[in-house]
Amino acid sequence: MKQWINQANEVIVRCKELARFTEEPGRITRTFLSPPMRGVHKLLEQWFEKAGMVPRVDAAGNLRGFRAGAGPGSRVLYLGSHIDTVLNAGAFDGVLGVVLALALVEDLGGRPLPFSIEVLAFSEEEGVRFGVPFIGSRASVGTLDRELLAREDAQGKTVADAIRDFGLDPGGLPHAILPPRPLAYLEFHIEQGPVLERLGVPLGIVDSIIGQSRRELIFRGQANHAGTTPMEMRRDALAGAAEWVARVEREACATPDLRATVGQFEVRPGASNVVPESVHASLDVRHALDEIRRRSVKSLRSYAEQIVERRGLELVWKQRLDQPATPLDPLLTSALEGAVRRAGLPVHHMVSGAGHDAMILAPHCPSAMLFLRSPGGISHQPDETVLPEDVAAALACGSEFLKEAEALYA
Amino acid sequence: MKQWINQANEVIVRCKELARFTEEPGRITRTFLSPPMRGVHKLLEQWFEKAGMVPRVDAAGNLRGFRAGAGPGSRVLYLGSHIDTVLNAGAFDGVLGVVLALALVEDLGGRPLPFSIEVLAFSEEEGVRFGVPFIGSRASVGTLDRELLAREDAQGKTVADAIRDFGLDPGGLPHAILPPRPLAYLEFHIEQGPVLERLGVPLGIVDSIIGQSRRELIFRGQANHAGTTPMEMRRDALAGAAEWVARVEREACATPDLRATVGQFEVRPGASNVVPESVHASLDVRHALDEIRRRSVKSLRSYAEQIVERRGLELVWKQRLDQPATPLDPLLTSALEGAVRRAGLPVHHMVSGAGHDAMILAPHCPSAMLFLRSPGGISHQPDETVLPEDVAAALACGSEFLKEAEALYA
Repeated sequence: MKQWINQANEVIVRCKELARFTEEPGRITRTFLSPPMRGVHKLLEQWFEKAGMVPRVDAAGNLRGFRAGAGPGSRVLYLGSHIDTVLNAGAFDGVLGVVLALALVEDLGGRPLPFSIEVLAFSEEEGVRFGVPFIGSRASVGTLDRELLAREDAQGKTVADAIRDFGLDPGGLPHAILPPRPLAYLEFHIEQGPVLERLGVPLGIVDSIIGQSRRELIFRGQANHAGTTPMEMRRDALAGAAEWVARVEREACATPDLRATVGQFEVRPGASNVVPESVHASLDVRHALDEIRRRSVKSLRSYAEQIVERRGLELVWKQRLDQPATPLDPLLTSALEGAVRRAGLPVHHMVSGAGHDAMILAPHCPSAMLFLRSPGGISHQPDETVLPEDVAAALACGSEFLKEAEALYA
Repeated sequence: MKQWINQANEVIVRCKELARFTEEPGRITRTFLSPPMRGVHKLLEQWFEKAGMVPRVDAAGNLRGFRAGAGPGSRVLYLGSHIDTVLNAGAFDGVLGVVLALALVEDLGGRPLPFSIEVLAFSEEEGVRFGVPFIGSRASVGTLDRELLAREDAQGKTVADAIRDFGLDPGGLPHAILPPRPLAYLEFHIEQGPVLERLGVPLGIVDSIIGQSRRELIFRGQANHAGTTPMEMRRDALAGAAEWVARVEREACATPDLRATVGQFEVRPGASNVVPESVHASLDVRHALDEIRRRSVKSLRSYAEQIVERRGLELVWKQRLDQPATPLDPLLTSALEGAVRRAGLPVHHMVSGAGHDAMILAPHCPSAMLFLRSPGGISHQPDETVLPEDVAAALACGSEFLKEAEALYA
C-alpha cells in the first residue's frame, strides 16, 4: 500500500479543498445546483483536464469527465459518486468517490485502455433541497420524470427552475442518459457506519443495498391538565407512543440484521404541565431481505394498533417509502473481490444500510460498490473523516480492478 | 337554585364580554398588563362602581373594588381570582371567580355588612409572559421581590418595565400589600379537571392545593445513521427516554392519587434516518402529601440513572420547582362546607391539582376555595365552559357564606 500513500494524501487534500465551497460559512452545506456548486465544478474541471479527461456538465448538473478508450465505440466504464452534501456535512461523503476516481485516471497517465472511462460527479444524492434524493443519478438512467422536475424547494423553485438558474437547459436531459451497453459502474464511498472499524478492516465489498420502509405515524390522545387529571382518566399520546418505541427496539434486536429507528418524534403541545395530545413519529425499517423487512413493518403496525386500542388513542399510519433491496452485480462484485485480494487486502462482504447512487444505476448497468472504513462510524457531521491508509488501500484495489478489466477487454 | 339562575346567566355573559379583550384576534390571549387588559379594567370598573364599590388599580396591576363595612377599621373579606389568561384560552379560568364575586356584592344591594369586602382581580396568575406565575397575588402578600421584578419577557421587557408601560409605578408596590388582619380570602374557580363531572357534583370544596415537583431531564446518546448502524452499536437517546416514560406512568398508576406527567419531550436531531442523539424532557409530579411526592421523584430519578447506565447514555437532571402542598384554612373551609349544605348542595371535598392564587394568599390570610364543575374536564382551551346551574349553585353557596359571616361578625 506504501506506493499509494502520496496519492491518498492528495485525495484527502482535494476533498478538503472542495469542502470550502459551501452555502454556509463555517459549515459544509452544498445542495443541488446551489451557487457554491460552480466552484466545485470549476476546480474538478481543471483537475479532469489535467488528467486527460474532457469535462462537461450535463443538463442535470452532473459534472462528467470523459477519457476515450482505444478504438471508436469502445464501451464505457463509469466511476463516480455525488458532490452535493447534507446540511453541516463532512468533507468525504460522496466527494471522496469522485476524487478517488480522478486519482485512478491520473495514475493511468497517457496509457490507452480498451474501454473508455467516464468519471461521474452526480449533482444530487442527499435529497436536501427538494426532499427527494438521487436527482443526478436518476437523470443518468432516464428516470428523472416530469413530476420530479416540478417538485418545489422551500423557496418555491422547481427542480427545472434550479437547472435553468444554473444556466442549464432541462430540455437537454435526454442527453444526460448513459448510452446503451455501459461496461459497468463502480462507486467508492465511505461506509458511514461503524462495522468495518469494529472488524479492523479497511474496505468492504457491498453485495447489496438494503431495502427500506418508511412510515409516518400519529398517536392522538387528549390534552389534559397535568395537575387536575387523574391518571386513570388520561389519554396520554406520549405514554402510548413510548410503549411503541420500546417495541420497535425489541423487534429490531430480536431480528438478526434488522435495523429499525424512530428518529422523528414530535410531542404536542409540549408543555410541562399538559398531558400530551399527540405524537408525530417516523419509522425507518431496513433489512437486506425484503420479506423480513415487510414482516417487521406489519408486526410493528399491528402492535401500534393494539396500543391505541387499549389506551383509547387514535392512530394515523402513513406509508412513505417502500424501497426494495437492490442487489449489486454478482460478476462485477466478484471481480472487485479479486482486486481486493490481489491488492493484498482482507475481503469483507457486507450490505449497505444507506442508499447510494449505485442503487439507482444498478438496474440499468452492472454496478459494484466499495466501502472505505469510517473512523468512529461518523458521517453526515463535520468530523466525518477517512484514514489515508484506507484511501491508499482503495486506490490499490481500484488500480487492480482496472488492470483486470484491461486484460479482459483487450 | 332557581332564584340564582338569572344572575348566573349574567355572570356567564359578562365572562364572555371580558373575553373579547384579547391580544390575538379570534383567540383569547391576555397576558400580564398587555394592552387589552385596559379594556377589562374599564368594564370591570364600571360594574364595580354600579355595585357600590370603589375601584382602584394597584401598582401590580391588580384591579380592586372596595366596599366599606359598617364602622371604621372593619376587617376585610377578600373575594377574587385572576384576569389574565393562557394562550388561546377559554373565557372562564380566573375571570369567573372575579365576576362571580361581583355578582355576590351586587346581590347585597346597599345593605351594610359588619366587614368590608374587596374584590381582587389579580393581574397575573398563569405565568405566560414572564415564565413565573402569580405576579398579582405575590404583590398582594409582599413577595414580589427585586429578582422577580427584573425578570424579562421575550421582548426583553422586565416586570417593572411592564408595570411602567401600563402607566403604573413600581414604587407603589408596598401599597398593593393587603393590610394586616385580613378576615379571609375566598376564591371561586372552575375545577379544570374531570373529577366533579364524573361524580355528578356541581361544586367541590378544596381542602388543599397539591404539592408539585418539576424537573428537566436530558437523555444524551449518540446520533448515528439509521441505516448503517447495527442495533447493538447504538446509543439511542429516544429508546432510553421512552423506557423511562413507561416507568413514570407505571409509578403514578401504582401510587394512589399520584399524578406524574412527561409533557415536554424534544427529540434531536429529529430526522427520520438518524438515531436520536438527545431527548429534552420535563417531569411534573404532584401529590397532596409531600412525602409521597418526594419519594416518587427520587424513585423516578434512580430509574433514569439505571437506564442511562445500562444503555451507555448520559443523564442531566435539573431541579426546577419543589412546591410543597398548601393546606387551606380548616375553619374557613368548614364554614364553606356549611354554606354548601345550607344551599342544599352535595358536599364533596377534594384537593386542587393545579396552583391557584389561594395558594399564595393562604400563608398570609385564612383562605378557602370552591371549585365549579368543568364540563368535559376541559380548560385552557377555547371550548372551556361552565354550566349556568353550577354558577347558580356557587352563587347560592357564596350568599350563604356571606350570611354566616355577617352573623358571626355582627
